[in-house]
Amino acid sequence: MSTTVAPALEELANVATLLTSDEDLREFRDPFAFETWDEYTASAVVMPETVEQIQEIVRIANRHGVPLWTHGQGRNNGYGGPAPRVKGSVVVSLRNMNRVLEINEECAYAVVGPGVRWFDLYEAIQAGGHPLMLSIADVGWGSVVGNTLDHGVTYMPYGVDMGMQCGMEVVLPDGELLRTGMGAMPNNRAWHVYKRGLGPTPDQLFMQSNYGIVTKMGVWLMPCPEVYMPLWLRVQNDDDLAPVIDTLRELMLDDTIRMVPQVLSAPLLASVLTERDKWWDGHGPIPDAELDRMARELEIGRWTMRFALYGDEAVVDHRFAKIKSAFERIPGADVTGTKVAPDDIAGLEHPVERVQGGVPSLDLNAMTAWYGGEEGGHIGFSPVAPLTGKDAIALRDLLRGMIEEAGLDYMAALIPINARSFIHVTLIIFDTKDEAQTSAAYDVAKRLVRDAAKLGYGEYRAHLDFMDLAAEQYSFGDHAYMRFCETIKDALDPNGILAPGKSGIWPKSMREG
Amino acid sequence: MSTTVAPALEELANVATLLTSDEDLREFRDPFAFETWDEYTASAVVMPETVEQIQEIVRIANRHGVPLWTHGQGRNNGYGGPAPRVKGSVVVSLRNMNRVLEINEECAYAVVGPGVRWFDLYEAIQAGGHPLMLSIADVGWGSVVGNTLDHGVTYMPYGVDMGMQCGMEVVLPDGELLRTGMGAMPNNRAWHVYKRGLGPTPDQLFMQSNYGIVTKMGVWLMPCPEVYMPLWLRVQNDDDLAPVIDTLRELMLDDTIRMVPQVLSAPLLASVLTERDKWWDGHGPIPDAELDRMARELEIGRWTMRFALYGDEAVVDHRFAKIKSAFERIPGADVTGTKVAPDDIAGLEHPVERVQGGVPSLDLNAMTAWYGGEEGGHIGFSPVAPLTGKDAIALRDLLRGMIEEAGLDYMAALIPINARSFIHVTLIIFDTKDEAQTSAAYDVAKRLVRDAAKLGYGEYRAHLDFMDLAAEQYSFGDHAYMRFCETIKDALDPNGILAPGKSGIWPKSMREG
Repeated sequence: MSTTVAPALEELANVATLLTSDEDLREFRDPFAFETWDEYTASAVVMPETVEQIQEIVRIANRHGVPLWTHGQGRNNGYGGPAPRVKGSVVVSLRNMNRVLEINEECAYAVVGPGVRWFDLYEAIQAGGHPLMLSIADVGWGSVVGNTLDHGVTYMPYGVDMGMQCGMEVVLPDGELLRTGMGAMPNNRAWHVYKRGLGPTPDQLFMQSNYGIVTKMGVWLMPCPEVYMPLWLRVQNDDDLAPVIDTLRELMLDDTIRMVPQVLSAPLLASVLTERDKWWDGHGPIPDAELDRMARELEIGRWTMRFALYGDEAVVDHRFAKIKSAFERIPGADVTGTKVAPDDIAGLEHPVERVQGGVPSLDLNAMTAWYGGEEGGHIGFSPVAPLTGKDAIALRDLLRGMIEEAGLDYMAALIPINARSFIHVTLIIFDTKDEAQTSAAYDVAKRLVRDAAKLGYGEYRAHLDFMDLAAEQYSFGDHAYMRFCETIKDALDPNGILAPGKSGIWPKSMREG
Repeated sequence: MSTTVAPALEELANVATLLTSDEDLREFRDPFAFETWDEYTASAVVMPETVEQIQEIVRIANRHGVPLWTHGQGRNNGYGGPAPRVKGSVVVSLRNMNRVLEINEECAYAVVGPGVRWFDLYEAIQAGGHPLMLSIADVGWGSVVGNTLDHGVTYMPYGVDMGMQCGMEVVLPDGELLRTGMGAMPNNRAWHVYKRGLGPTPDQLFMQSNYGIVTKMGVWLMPCPEVYMPLWLRVQNDDDLAPVIDTLRELMLDDTIRMVPQVLSAPLLASVLTERDKWWDGHGPIPDAELDRMARELEIGRWTMRFALYGDEAVVDHRFAKIKSAFERIPGADVTGTKVAPDDIAGLEHPVERVQGGVPSLDLNAMTAWYGGEEGGHIGFSPVAPLTGKDAIALRDLLRGMIEEAGLDYMAALIPINARSFIHVTLIIFDTKDEAQTSAAYDVAKRLVRDAAKLGYGEYRAHLDFMDLAAEQYSFGDHAYMRFCETIKDALDPNGILAPGKSGIWPKSMREG
């Protein structure tokens, strides 16, 4: 513990629960980092329960020059978990600020604290008997606010363009309390129904940044539709990816499909269902012939798309017929699905069908055990591309080639976040007990950052360990965007106490040169 | 002309076309201001044609401390037109930067310069034979970028939540050139298809602000649907407004209606079709009995809603039946509409049906002639409210009461910008040749700013003459939001040269106290 931190910790302990033991701090490391790596470790974790406590924590940090690092629940798996960028930072964990503050049934929204998990909000909606659905992430333990602030993906119609956030309350680095949009007017009635205010709208400035600590947020909910219809598309050949993506774009552009699908490679889907050594125990990545066998035996196709329809039954029927006919023009492709009443979603067997229907669980976390046992890890490498077959193939070839060269498996989820673009989430899966394999995964991810950028693809979200490298690729105008971010950082946080290094944004005192 | 401006003008004239004659400058005044009022007059207008010229203009302004005021086309009618907040500012008119830079048919978007009008982009799409539609504003002369930057409304599905902008290029107040989102990476392929980048997303920071001059912007286009169906709802009684709004909310929340309707009061719709003295030439506002007569004789109802469906014919048919049945539960209400093929939209007789189908014209500008002749004016007073019948009635009663007390007519367009909120655009219409009436209109608008705020309703957009007053209402946390805006202003524009006073944001040198 550095000498500057000790007196600050004493003051922080008077404000809120403070954790400092090695055992407690272990929970706030990157769960997938190799055991002896200690670059991203916190000196303490403070757990406020009120906005006033956060304001006091920020003021103490300013007085002592102690860096803070914030999370909602800290489930940022694949991107560094809850760990801070700067060693010795004090983690501000908002896990105890987990109250659902309001559910407005008439205008279909909720207001939540930053520690509210998908589980918590789902349960509050159920408990209140509201006929409303929440667009959720794959794993239910994450925080709604935390996911939103990291540009996290959800899958129902409001997941399109990450569109469900409306109105924020934020503690600024100097301890001031800001309300965005219409919330800037006291007692304004439209804070959580209209996304802007009068003047510039700062909400997205607090996402993937280090400009403030969000303490409250509005979340739009969807009225339960007459029918929910989870759908599956399977195709048999690796190169079918191109017509799948081109067909999907047309069906999303014309509004036939309006939600966030996932196009999954065979091994990624297999990792949810089985372990790796069932398919291959030879040296290096799984060969193509074995991938074909895996696809055949698990009946998952070389690519599988999970998606869904929501709406009036007549509209769902029309759209299903149109979707089926469009995709089944691809030889060997098939589209299947079953209509479900909203009340029956929680009883569905497949976790994906529950997730797309807004029912959270931890089931989809199983993929981390690809290499057996209970331990497992992954790094997310996630560039964005136009939603075209050509771009999908270009990224697949680049990523598969480099990852297999590193002796690892190419496991891909292409996530069309709107009708025009997709995030190519590449899960680089490794055995966290194998230091060489863990290092190989980190190394190839870093090579991918540069090589994808050369082809014009940038990450939507960066792992703690290569945030700087990922941010460096956004270099137009001699890094004009980063200088812009730094100018705002220095103005809002002159002492540089809040999350230094987040998204590659460093305060003046820590910048080189 | 002040002494500090003269040397700057000399330099500016070397960079781009400079207008300084009284006759030329007249075009850049608020067209509705009374003739002898001169508070918001420019000292000159400079008309750059390239990004480099804008950068040079900004540098000259910094050297001489001359305030600039920017517009795309300057059609900001009802909110001050192209006039600058600070007298003697140099207007940077981007009217000549009117090139459509790209139309991408595959991913359905365009990239435009800041002077491109609705007319220009529409014509470029037609000329290229692209099966794409553009969501447009009511009057076709405005600039696509300018409208977007002022939070302007458009009416097709991409008008919902003003969602069609994707990716910007911006000249910052110090002359730096910033590209937002994925555009911050050189040659990134996803700049105009993915709305964010890595790190905080600044796009909305450049709307309703004075932080930069937008020089390029992506605009999403909608593939032509199988069927376009413009619809009209009429209701007979003033209080039918409440069930209209409540029914509409349910139909928008469940996605039956997805576009931006307008709910119009009888006199506003009448002003497009006729002149005021046909209905009333007595003293003060038009009495209720005459409003009923007007509604009956013009067959427009006391409230009329203009809206539309877009999509596959089977879906449109299902939705039309559902909409008709829902609204016609209101006694006396009727819903009518006719299906149109996209190719036939330009031939529709009613300008509203063309506007909602993306075909621009100037026809809807007729309302300004409510008091006869060619001259006419209006002030827009436009608070935002939750999309509930209760809120609609509360605002109607407040606004109608105060406007009629001032001897003027209450003319309202309620514009649901999404399924949860509406903008109550109140057009305070006056005869610009009548100074007393013009003053009365300004005065009542200012009283409305305060009184609406007391009820929890804030403006979405403010008139030049009461931007400060409107901004003052956003006072949560002792004006924390304004201090936040000022902090960013001072950091990005230390000399305060860009649009001082816009949205109530003043640079340090011009702030009081």
